[in-house]
Amino acid sequence: MKKISVDLRIIGVVHSPYKITKDVPRRCKKEISEIEIYKEYEQGLKDIEGFTHIHILYWLHKSTGYSLHVNTPWDDSPRGLFTTRSPHRPNPIGHTTVELVERKGNILKVKGLDAIDDTPVMDIKPYVKKFDMKTHAVSGWLEKTDLKGD
Amino acid sequence: MKKISVDLRIIGVVHSPYKITKDVPRRCKKEISEIEIYKEYEQGLKDIEGFTHIHILYWLHKSTGYSLHVNTPWDDSPRGLFTTRSPHRPNPIGHTTVELVERKGNILKVKGLDAIDDTPVMDIKPYVKKFDMKTHAVSGWLEKTDLKGD
Repeated sequence: MKKISVDLRIIGVVHSPYKITKDVPRRCKKEISEIEIYKEYEQGLKDIEGFTHIHILYWLHKSTGYSLHVNTPWDDSPRGLFTTRSPHRPNPIGHTTVELVERKGNILKVKGLDAIDDTPVMDIKPYVKKFDMKTHAVSGWLEKTDLKGD
Repeated sequence: MKKISVDLRIIGVVHSPYKITKDVPRRCKKEISEIEIYKEYEQGLKDIEGFTHIHILYWLHKSTGYSLHVNTPWDDSPRGLFTTRSPHRPNPIGHTTVELVERKGNILKVKGLDAIDDTPVMDIKPYVKKFDMKTHAVSGWLEKTDLKGD
């Protein structure tokens, strides 16, 4: 098994109303979380208030182990792990696109972050509509589930 | 500085027409890359052929150092790192949403991947329109640049 040994830098931490994984709703849309970016990285947030949406990459620090076939809450068939957002992955890196509600200094108030309280944040990237919006995307087996859209 | 020491698992590798970073066009849309998922992870790809778009997370293995203010090719102002897709980041984790053109066993043929040849792949996640498409997103300073849309 190929691995890379690295020191990941924690650039911030999530303050969330969800204290444990089971608290996170399947469709996490309305609750506000705060992302505290540590002061040493705050300058990297320059200009971010102009963006309505951002990508958050975080470390799924409660994740343990993984299975390549996953039973999801959405239907009764085991699905390939890489077609799911299961937090149990070979590399427990979480990714969510959130709405940026407000920036106050090093604190980002965001909507729709399905990470639990105290989750370490690894990166923030801008949501760029011209790159990231795939109008004609088809989402495989998830199309047939009762996921509700925005 | 807070860090986590981890062994990241490499789940696959990128085979790309771009051999070095300078080969990657600013708007990487048309070229086809192949993602070879290592056999031990292949079962995690079950059902993926039903998805037209997927998120690729990869390790920016040529990245060295970073600056919190970045000069981008898009305009003349230094921008906050976290509003850019610069490969030089505190954690060199790349993220691109690509079109899945074809799957053949453990090989994914994708369009729009701006990763260079031999890039280690860390994760694949489904692009789920109902989660990932932000129709009303505004992309800050990037709105005023000559980024062309799809």
